[in-house]
Amino acid sequence: MPHRTAFFISDGTGITAETFAKAILAQFEIDPKRVRMPFIDSPDKAWQAVRQINHAAEVDGKRPLVFTTVVNMEVLAVLRAECKGMLIDMFGTFISPLEEELGMKSNHRVGRFSDVSKSQEYHDRIEAINFTLDHDDGQTNEDLEKSDVILVGVSRSGKTPTSLYLAMQFGLKASNYPLIPEDFERRTLPPALVPFKKKLFGLTIDPARLSEIRNERRPNSRYASLENCRYEVAEAEAMMRRAGIRTLSTTTKSIEEIATIIRQDLNLQ
Amino acid sequence: MPHRTAFFISDGTGITAETFAKAILAQFEIDPKRVRMPFIDSPDKAWQAVRQINHAAEVDGKRPLVFTTVVNMEVLAVLRAECKGMLIDMFGTFISPLEEELGMKSNHRVGRFSDVSKSQEYHDRIEAINFTLDHDDGQTNEDLEKSDVILVGVSRSGKTPTSLYLAMQFGLKASNYPLIPEDFERRTLPPALVPFKKKLFGLTIDPARLSEIRNERRPNSRYASLENCRYEVAEAEAMMRRAGIRTLSTTTKSIEEIATIIRQDLNLQ
Repeated sequence: MPHRTAFFISDGTGITAETFAKAILAQFEIDPKRVRMPFIDSPDKAWQAVRQINHAAEVDGKRPLVFTTVVNMEVLAVLRAECKGMLIDMFGTFISPLEEELGMKSNHRVGRFSDVSKSQEYHDRIEAINFTLDHDDGQTNEDLEKSDVILVGVSRSGKTPTSLYLAMQFGLKASNYPLIPEDFERRTLPPALVPFKKKLFGLTIDPARLSEIRNERRPNSRYASLENCRYEVAEAEAMMRRAGIRTLSTTTKSIEEIATIIRQDLNLQ
Repeated sequence: MPHRTAFFISDGTGITAETFAKAILAQFEIDPKRVRMPFIDSPDKAWQAVRQINHAAEVDGKRPLVFTTVVNMEVLAVLRAECKGMLIDMFGTFISPLEEELGMKSNHRVGRFSDVSKSQEYHDRIEAINFTLDHDDGQTNEDLEKSDVILVGVSRSGKTPTSLYLAMQFGLKASNYPLIPEDFERRTLPPALVPFKKKLFGLTIDPARLSEIRNERRPNSRYASLENCRYEVAEAEAMMRRAGIRTLSTTTKSIEEIATIIRQDLNLQ
């Protein structure tokens, strides 16, 4: 298959363009060379981008795919007129029909982050990240009541990356708390969690997969042994069932999927 | 202004749909009610979505905006035929022209994460998150050479959230290391960092903004005082300049912007 190049062009960070392009490209059995071009925010930079795109067109002998979220009209005009790629204009395509539907002009503002130090939403998101880090792995019970959600589960069931994703992507304060052998012997939830039952969400995992993951961290340890993983998972599942906590198996799920299910289930918007 | 509802509909997590819709909606001075509908992956669920959309259309007296990344053709057919919203079909719109350009059919596969426990890319990303957490705030010098980037700067200059974003979004191993008064007295970089000068990236911040941020954590402390913030920032900037480390001011920048600039600057792909 002849080589192709895909460009991701934005007048901002290009993260939306890249996320979008990844999702679209996953629909095809191709693996193009990827070139990221963030901060293309002047006609001058647009011309530089055009030069690269047209060079790739010549070298590849195939039209490059040019995914763009540019909103600056001057920049877009240069790309439209001059680039020899296939322009996949994810904003422009929808902006005109939306202007008509909404009966208003768009503002052509770049990105969502022009003034972060003054944005309450951004401030809250950073706060959520800090809160989540402070409350990782049951480090502290202080302010636990301020959590939007408290994840529980055995060590390495996916609590930490999921908590961080909930904070980073959705601005949620996500604590997480390990279930450990002492809890299983006592056969009750860690006492600090009891007042917050409605905020608890349990993660579980297939013992064989858990053993694999733990073996990467501590090879050939009792901690990572299949036998111990089976014991811990069975105990943790039984405990969560007794306590009436919703649980989800993370075995084949991405942190995006786990986080989306938690958010939907606990109705966190 | 009459009320409007925006729906984000996906057969996967809907995170791409939501990211995209947020970026598009930021172009207009409207603030619609937002309804997320992930995992709409069967005609049955599509019908349920249609009912909600058409209900909103009636209540609002305005067509809802329906942002969708659905790739399942049966689901899409129901939405197209039955929903009384304005369908903003970010995948379908581009898939047909791309099929033509590429000379192949798309696979209509949902999401990128169908088999995460077997995906090397996903595994590496989780590893990067774990590495980044282990190397937060100079906690350990072990494996420091495996870092893709090492962020340095004074306490609360934005190192931790930026590191986590680099790991979470781009799968980069991002360590971070604080510059502290002892370093300023010694007037040299922390010795552990010296071998990795090429991986260092400095974050700096306006002292007044730093004082604000620190005051949220430790009100009225010497640590948060404007005088101390001025001293630390001046010393850190001088040290990074002497060491020839690239630096960026985070004062008005989002973690997305900071991460994108670092990635571009250090040529981390």
